[in-house]
Amino acid sequence: MSQDQVPEIVVDRLPLYLRMLEFLKKEDKAITSSQELADRLGLSSAQIRKDLSYFGGFGKQGTGYAIDYLIKQLRQILHVDRVWDVALIGAGDLGRALAHYQGFEQQGFRLVAIFDNAPKKIGTAVGDLHVQDMAELPRLVREKTIRVAILAVPADAAATVAAKLVELGICAILNYAPITLNVPPNVRVYHIDPVIGLQNMAYYL
Amino acid sequence: MSQDQVPEIVVDRLPLYLRMLEFLKKEDKAITSSQELADRLGLSSAQIRKDLSYFGGFGKQGTGYAIDYLIKQLRQILHVDRVWDVALIGAGDLGRALAHYQGFEQQGFRLVAIFDNAPKKIGTAVGDLHVQDMAELPRLVREKTIRVAILAVPADAAATVAAKLVELGICAILNYAPITLNVPPNVRVYHIDPVIGLQNMAYYL
Repeated sequence: MSQDQVPEIVVDRLPLYLRMLEFLKKEDKAITSSQELADRLGLSSAQIRKDLSYFGGFGKQGTGYAIDYLIKQLRQILHVDRVWDVALIGAGDLGRALAHYQGFEQQGFRLVAIFDNAPKKIGTAVGDLHVQDMAELPRLVREKTIRVAILAVPADAAATVAAKLVELGICAILNYAPITLNVPPNVRVYHIDPVIGLQNMAYYL
Repeated sequence: MSQDQVPEIVVDRLPLYLRMLEFLKKEDKAITSSQELADRLGLSSAQIRKDLSYFGGFGKQGTGYAIDYLIKQLRQILHVDRVWDVALIGAGDLGRALAHYQGFEQQGFRLVAIFDNAPKKIGTAVGDLHVQDMAELPRLVREKTIRVAILAVPADAAATVAAKLVELGICAILNYAPITLNVPPNVRVYHIDPVIGLQNMAYYL
């Protein structure tokens, strides 16, 4: 099935399935079921079977899913059976926290550089990386054919930096800045905003 | 309509509508339409009308939505027409970034305290707050009747801290730790995980 035919809402759930499967694997489980996944994730088992059916199913009636096999398939579907180089823009508190985050590489992403435009930050060490001048970004993107960036700059700088990223050929932006970015249709933005999560939970309070 | 009758997936979208309406308001717009919201958010206008119909509609055929009115209604529905006190656990890079985040208070949340268990962090200033000893958490939660917490601690500490939060009566946890928390059914967890966003976008790469 071509990418465009799978509803976005289904794609949204695939990383959650993958994370849960890897969690179950760490618990030394080899087989799971749509019911177990549903219970763990707060979804219905019918939903999970339907979502996976877009890609061919992966389970046999009555025998459940082989966790290792389903992890492998989901990683292929999500294109994280490889490692994507990622540029991190912003070396403030948030940028530093992200640079220290240990979960990227085993999930398909490698931070290869961190950029900032503040002279006092440029050259300083953050984890295994050194903060580079924003002026160096075009060269790095070109040399490493980078397609993915994380935007961890203040709100008032985000639009300008995002425009620069798009101009350089970045087509996936994980946006931590609390603004809506205007990008061309071929560029995807995933907005990480704590307020959205808090408001979502407040509904149930 | 009672809370339980609205699908979670609809509730998930309400904060996105609210954010977009506030964005349009900042652009000095007074009226919008389901079509404009749909175009801006990458959804269908039918979806937006259907979502809002769970709560009574709010628009008249042909005249669109009055932005101020819809903002007010959505804030009431989401229970953010008041301000919730929030405890932030973890004063590392991420905790500090969150403490400096300016977007909480106008969206219904106020960070009232930040906690850590590292002696060298306790007492230090982070924005307008001072880091408090985790041992002080129960008193603060009781005194301020806190129901919402943000968990910004390392993965290996998250389960223990989450259990403590639940024990103290916290019923909404914004979880930044890269692990799945086991909590009772009456406690909601909203997991913020950069990997989920990156994998989602990688599908389209």
